[in-house]
Amino acid sequence: MKRIGVGLLGFGTVGGGVYKTLRSQEDVILKRTETLFEVRSILVKEKEKERSIEGVQPLITTDFDRVLESGVEVIVEAIGGTEPARMYVERALEAGCHVVTANKELMAKHGVQLERLARHHQVQILYEASVGGGIPVLGTMGHFLKANRVQRITGILNGTTNYILTRMAREGASFEEVLAEAQQKGYAEADPAADVDGFDAVYKLAILCRLAFETQVSVQQILREGIRDITPEELELAQRLGYVVKLLATGEQYGEKGPVSLGVSPSLLPISHPLAGVEGVYNAIHLEGDVVGDVTLVGRGAGERPTASAVVEDLSNLFRLPSPKLPLSDSMLLPAGEAGGSRFLFMKLREGEVPEPEKLRQKLERIGLEVVDVVSARGGVAFILRRWDPSYTSVVVTELGLELSQIVSRPVQGGGLCQEQQPEMEGVV
Amino acid sequence: MKRIGVGLLGFGTVGGGVYKTLRSQEDVILKRTETLFEVRSILVKEKEKERSIEGVQPLITTDFDRVLESGVEVIVEAIGGTEPARMYVERALEAGCHVVTANKELMAKHGVQLERLARHHQVQILYEASVGGGIPVLGTMGHFLKANRVQRITGILNGTTNYILTRMAREGASFEEVLAEAQQKGYAEADPAADVDGFDAVYKLAILCRLAFETQVSVQQILREGIRDITPEELELAQRLGYVVKLLATGEQYGEKGPVSLGVSPSLLPISHPLAGVEGVYNAIHLEGDVVGDVTLVGRGAGERPTASAVVEDLSNLFRLPSPKLPLSDSMLLPAGEAGGSRFLFMKLREGEVPEPEKLRQKLERIGLEVVDVVSARGGVAFILRRWDPSYTSVVVTELGLELSQIVSRPVQGGGLCQEQQPEMEGVV
Ligand SMILES: NC(=O)c1ccc[n+]([C@@H]2O[C@H](COP(=O)([O-])OP(=O)(O)OC[C@H]3O[C@@H](n4cnc5c(N)ncnc54)[C@H](OP(=O)(O)O)[C@@H]3O)[C@@H](O)[C@H]2O)c1
Ligand SMILES: NC(=O)c1ccc[n+]([C@@H]2O[C@H](COP(=O)([O-])OP(=O)(O)OC[C@H]3O[C@@H](n4cnc5c(N)ncnc54)[C@H](OP(=O)(O)O)[C@@H]3O)[C@@H](O)[C@H]2O)c1
Repeated sequence: MKRIGVGLLGFGTVGGGVYKTLRSQEDVILKRTETLFEVRSILVKEKEKERSIEGVQPLITTDFDRVLESGVEVIVEAIGGTEPARMYVERALEAGCHVVTANKELMAKHGVQLERLARHHQVQILYEASVGGGIPVLGTMGHFLKANRVQRITGILNGTTNYILTRMAREGASFEEVLAEAQQKGYAEADPAADVDGFDAVYKLAILCRLAFETQVSVQQILREGIRDITPEELELAQRLGYVVKLLATGEQYGEKGPVSLGVSPSLLPISHPLAGVEGVYNAIHLEGDVVGDVTLVGRGAGERPTASAVVEDLSNLFRLPSPKLPLSDSMLLPAGEAGGSRFLFMKLREGEVPEPEKLRQKLERIGLEVVDVVSARGGVAFILRRWDPSYTSVVVTELGLELSQIVSRPVQGGGLCQEQQPEMEGVV
Repeated sequence: MKRIGVGLLGFGTVGGGVYKTLRSQEDVILKRTETLFEVRSILVKEKEKERSIEGVQPLITTDFDRVLESGVEVIVEAIGGTEPARMYVERALEAGCHVVTANKELMAKHGVQLERLARHHQVQILYEASVGGGIPVLGTMGHFLKANRVQRITGILNGTTNYILTRMAREGASFEEVLAEAQQKGYAEADPAADVDGFDAVYKLAILCRLAFETQVSVQQILREGIRDITPEELELAQRLGYVVKLLATGEQYGEKGPVSLGVSPSLLPISHPLAGVEGVYNAIHLEGDVVGDVTLVGRGAGERPTASAVVEDLSNLFRLPSPKLPLSDSMLLPAGEAGGSRFLFMKLREGEVPEPEKLRQKLERIGLEVVDVVSARGGVAFILRRWDPSYTSVVVTELGLELSQIVSRPVQGGGLCQEQQPEMEGVV
């Protein structure tokens, strides 16, 4: 039996959850990995705050040096943000400690450098909890897709926005209403920007992208659109066209070491797509490999227990699994969602205006657009168009005499796959 | 760079796919694992059969000894069935070769003994491809759920039956019609028993059960019901009640080292369940862990490329990942699906009989059954009942003056989870 000293940085939702999980799973972990993890010190911001977990008071400190001196081989970082988390993680690695973190912002912005530092000091840094909470997506990419080239990833990576969109679609409520209620219940932060404006999903996509395409991108380069402008009318019309609207993170690579395109934006998925039914708190990642085809992983993307589970699974694996090698290269970044795919166009009507879907369809066709489908309701008219080009937006606005603010345009994803979802099978016996 | 000699046993769908995949992915595997896999010999049954892949003829043999003598460190078994596959695998392990196999029957029936033999000879036996094709479910359980106690697994594990049920539900066609067409197209075997009578799913469940519950069961002990008696009427009524019918493999453990219940049978799932939308060729496994909550893995359960992918991923991991330790114990086996859960009851009408759902509901309630919902169509009447007990079947038959053959009764699964699917979230920020 090995005895491993652990230092916790942060003792909030995740840090507290890790502490409790190490206790409740102690026997299972010991039986299966012959390792006993002992929390030896806990770094917090406010020493005086009352802690609901019994017996931890003597471990609590606000002095990082005391953590390093408490006989620890592993540091679990659960503070969040970049500073001082980054400084502490660096110091831990330099002191020869392994690091497990749940911090997506840190790993998105400084992951490459921190992994390099870890290698230099012959320790590991693992961060499964930073993407998709309890879903073992980083592990799957690092260990079970070694012989596959990942061609595309599509993810629902933010629980708060998925919860808001799910409720808006079910109840026809507005973004503001659902957000306010979510904040009241503690489901959304007082400052919701990180979630609803897509920053959180962008961080996670940057991390996924490194593993999937072995390429390094800075988070500023990733297209980012949030969900603030989504209306229940738009969701309803999308639904009537056979789609759901999700805040999707998508990454695609064109050929090996080829250019990649990455983006987070509200997008339509056909209801038959594996990600379309992923609702509320659930997160999901759809991976396409060149041999395996598509694999979808679904689970709880956040919350105390799923996140703590991922951290503790990383802990158990530190001394079992090899560190996945990441031979990173630079790739050209193409603008996301701009290629000739399908598009959802929602035209909001002006006060008192009557929807005339057929007339609008004819107008769109006259200017050369390929209309696949159209529906209308009191609030507006929605189209599915083929072979979209971003330049069309201004053409549509001009030709139809609209204002730019009347038009909402979203990519339609998962079209190719949808056909494969038909129950055809080759050699499946 | 390591050079690893590989011997293939079998060169059909899977063996041929492995050969092609090792070629097409050679550079990726080399880059990421610094290993070059070279196929040095191929065992087949008929030496004279023409092989569509160029250059393999010199490697082909019908003599197993020649394979062992061709300088191989790994044997890939893709023959199928128990004999001679078992004998070859044993001899390979005894000769100090690692083994990778796609053979669920072999691993379900003799896996415990073969793993013991492998350990004895300090080699590994991996079999990811045997369950769920390209879905890395064994790897996930072996490496990413070490700190979790798996409490329940629910799977769609057989592609042929899922394809048949999907088509029957979509087209209202009968089992016989869809099966015949599937056979004609080569999607189902001439002798379809292994698939449609549930043997294949039982093998896979036995394997999953070993990893999930660390317990050993013999395949004969697992409840097995096939899909031959399913009618399009039943599927339609289930759908109108808000459910889909799937051939589900379910395993549950009651407390640590507690009794387990295992079964394969047509079962109803609420349409909101993560497995309900899994159609056609897709397989899926829903895992419930005590900390992580539920994780669902979806992908292609069979076919040349997904299966070859799993075999080749296993090959890449032989020299990277530790062999998961399996401390097996014996558990009591409880009868599956018999506990007081919800039940779907479908009563077929006799020729010319008119459905009287309300009258039947009252009769059922009078004999003490809790009716949740009822629908009817020309062919019959269907109920959702609560707190079912297997003894009720004969009561219903007697009290309602039916023949046993008029009654179809199926477990309803995933009820508990459904509520969690509501967009509620704790601490998800
Ligand atoms: N919550 C989730 O569901 C979830 C899911 C996945 C990933 N994550 C990630 O996990 C990390 C932690 O999230 P959380 O929800 O656990 O946060 P939290 O509940 O706000 O807890 C943060 C903890 O860090 C401590 N802390 C803050 N600033 C500090 C400083 N300068 N020095 C030392 N300690 C400091 C706080 O101390 P006091 O207790 O004294 O205030 C608190 O214990 C974040 O990176 C987050 O993105 C969270
Ligand atoms: N097909 C799938 O999608 C799939 C998916 C998952 C798992 N699996 C499993 O993979 C295994 C192989 O399936 P498969 O579909 O590849 O089968 P297959 O296409 O029928 O190929 C079987 C191969 O084994 C050879 N063979 C048969 N009996 C032999 C014997 N006594 N000695 C030596 N070679 C013998 C055959 O030789 P000849 O070529 O000379 O006839 C043939 O090359 C089975 O365990 C199956 O359950 C298959």
